[in-house]
Amino acid sequence: MPARALARAVEEQLPLAERVFADLADRTRDGEGVTRAAWSAQDQVGIDMLAEAGRDLGLEVAHDPAGNVYLTLPGRDRSLPGVLMGSHFDSVPTGGNYDGAAGAVAGLVVLAALRAQGVTPARDMRCVGLRGEESVWYGIAYIGSRLAVGSLDPAEPARLVRGDTGRTLADHMRDLGIDPSRLAGAPPFVSPANTKAFLELHIEQGPVLVARDLPAAIPTVIRGNVRFPYARCLGEYAHSAAVPRGGRKDALLATVELVARLDALWQELEAEGHPDTVFTVGKLYTDAAEHAMTKVPGACCFTLNFGGTSKDVLDRLRDRTYALADEIGAARNVTFALGDCVGSDPTPLDDGLRDRLRTASQALGIPVIEMPTVGHDASIFARAGIPAAMVLVRNQHGSHNAAEAMEMADFGEGAKLLAVTALELAEQ
Amino acid sequence: MPARALARAVEEQLPLAERVFADLADRTRDGEGVTRAAWSAQDQVGIDMLAEAGRDLGLEVAHDPAGNVYLTLPGRDRSLPGVLMGSHFDSVPTGGNYDGAAGAVAGLVVLAALRAQGVTPARDMRCVGLRGEESVWYGIAYIGSRLAVGSLDPAEPARLVRGDTGRTLADHMRDLGIDPSRLAGAPPFVSPANTKAFLELHIEQGPVLVARDLPAAIPTVIRGNVRFPYARCLGEYAHSAAVPRGGRKDALLATVELVARLDALWQELEAEGHPDTVFTVGKLYTDAAEHAMTKVPGACCFTLNFGGTSKDVLDRLRDRTYALADEIGAARNVTFALGDCVGSDPTPLDDGLRDRLRTASQALGIPVIEMPTVGHDASIFARAGIPAAMVLVRNQHGSHNAAEAMEMADFGEGAKLLAVTALELAEQ
Repeated sequence: MPARALARAVEEQLPLAERVFADLADRTRDGEGVTRAAWSAQDQVGIDMLAEAGRDLGLEVAHDPAGNVYLTLPGRDRSLPGVLMGSHFDSVPTGGNYDGAAGAVAGLVVLAALRAQGVTPARDMRCVGLRGEESVWYGIAYIGSRLAVGSLDPAEPARLVRGDTGRTLADHMRDLGIDPSRLAGAPPFVSPANTKAFLELHIEQGPVLVARDLPAAIPTVIRGNVRFPYARCLGEYAHSAAVPRGGRKDALLATVELVARLDALWQELEAEGHPDTVFTVGKLYTDAAEHAMTKVPGACCFTLNFGGTSKDVLDRLRDRTYALADEIGAARNVTFALGDCVGSDPTPLDDGLRDRLRTASQALGIPVIEMPTVGHDASIFARAGIPAAMVLVRNQHGSHNAAEAMEMADFGEGAKLLAVTALELAEQ
Repeated sequence: MPARALARAVEEQLPLAERVFADLADRTRDGEGVTRAAWSAQDQVGIDMLAEAGRDLGLEVAHDPAGNVYLTLPGRDRSLPGVLMGSHFDSVPTGGNYDGAAGAVAGLVVLAALRAQGVTPARDMRCVGLRGEESVWYGIAYIGSRLAVGSLDPAEPARLVRGDTGRTLADHMRDLGIDPSRLAGAPPFVSPANTKAFLELHIEQGPVLVARDLPAAIPTVIRGNVRFPYARCLGEYAHSAAVPRGGRKDALLATVELVARLDALWQELEAEGHPDTVFTVGKLYTDAAEHAMTKVPGACCFTLNFGGTSKDVLDRLRDRTYALADEIGAARNVTFALGDCVGSDPTPLDDGLRDRLRTASQALGIPVIEMPTVGHDASIFARAGIPAAMVLVRNQHGSHNAAEAMEMADFGEGAKLLAVTALELAEQ
């Protein structure tokens, strides 16, 4: 099927997408935004809507043991590894409607367009609705995709506790009729043996496409990160006026020096040609139970979060953090307890798939740029040995907040790139 | 009476001081420390103990309309302005036993020593037990001394609210049988007309005397300060990995730059010869309800607190803070709302009284240094036109905490300096 004809067929399915987005928002609304906790009645709304839409289209509907849902347009040779599209339905608290539902609905739209045109591809084409991508609920991210590919210990749901309810993921699964004991021993539901490629559409969570006035982007790599979630600096509380500089053990000014020097290092890295590095101190606080304007602070808690596309740069940032903490701690008579250092290596997205997406954008006349992106389920499939690529769609006001706003025209352009590339792969 | 004889007489009264300190601690204990709220049953314990000790010694006992207590050793000419010694009985929550009870008890010890020696000076000698010095209870400091000299609006007790009880100072006064309506219209209880000098002994609240291995110091000046108690930086929350540097409005990194540059300015001032300047950021925090390791922080609250002995330096620090906030705000695309700027000018202590204290230290062979000190009731008497000076006594572990620890031998040395100087003034 020619690319332009398929693009028109996708265009015709946009009212379906709009309907699904509107229903989903209505049924999971929470104040100004939406809240769809992982494995809750709210992300179940998305899972069930996708299943129902699939049945309406005559697609095969299946659930894996973790409760992710799959719609399948059967190919001519069911034994060949298929093409998988999709993303997650869970959101952050009072988040936006499109992160990541846009990716699941885009997969649905592609299958609906092919169904409407009566296309039967060579290979199965599938769309997955995942859950548990957001780390805010159980402390770790990508739980649904990790369970789907078998890269998370199946005993983990009995150990992971949801912060706001204090109950385990296994408990919340059982609330939804999902039996967590079925996870153990089951072969991975998604694997290189049954899946040739994974394609994920996702809204851009930053301002780059808005600033560049472009509808979509093709990510080159999923940024890795180096994170210190529980760093502390310990000094000694003292009278703010009675103690001269030399006698102080000021935990706050020491932390400020550490952060300021890491910020300067970030600027140096940019100047050296690493424009993709990011540095965020999301939390930094003196102790509310002890601090006062008139006391030298004896303690300061903070987080450090470096992101980047180069493992070398991330390693350098981590090493430099330890060295600076030692140096500043000694000079300022305080102790840094940086705590656990966690993170992940950068995950390159598949070159071949990115070539196809670029070719599709040229064929359809959809202008795109290539740029790194942040953590997404695609990284889990890539690490499980399944070639993966992504399409980012322009979105206003960032994500993880109620003001998130994707335009349907931009979603349509992204879905067209997805459709053309997925069908091409499925026909091979 | 020769200085050395008076010093011996003071030494003989140290068991009395020890007894008073022990009783006071026993009767106001709160966990590891003591809590004596301003105008509570607990600071009343101090007031009553002083009055009782005064009566036992045959001294005149009086209370001013604010509820401060005065013991008087009558002089030969009751019409001459007298010499006043003393300090405050209130403490911070779970504070130490000696800030500022040491000063009131020192005044008692001096009068007891003179009484024991049968001395009748030319002028009245008085000791005052003040209340309401600590700002933690009603938001402002020196309430007792300000009411004593008439520099606080007598209507203020009906407006000042105690943070932890939510009740007004007037209410708490009435609980103790003090009628706040008697404050209005009354002439100042303490004025240059009836008081020739005010001498305050106080523990050192910093580590200087411990570090220098000296029992006491003679303060040169009470540091002034420039304070921003409610400063904020406002930016925009954003995804920590999706938004490149140029698109960020990072309230935390902007605040860190402001604080780091003020810290550098503090170091420059020291290098330029202003060793008495201090800079404290006692509170700094991202918003616990919104912050996350993976979010660029959109808001940061903080305090700035500069102390110094030069009004010029303090003015320069204030001006520079505003200029830096503008510059950094523009460069980093955030807004600083520095809020109210409050503070007080430095208050020099009286040269003539300091000369006398220095001479006394030489006569008694008590080694001292001269150094600036922090805010004390003495500044209120000085600003009311009463020549004022202080004696600082060595103290371990700072103050405003339960670990505060003054040795009786050091207290004795300070009380001797106080006695010799006060009697010399009273004999003139």
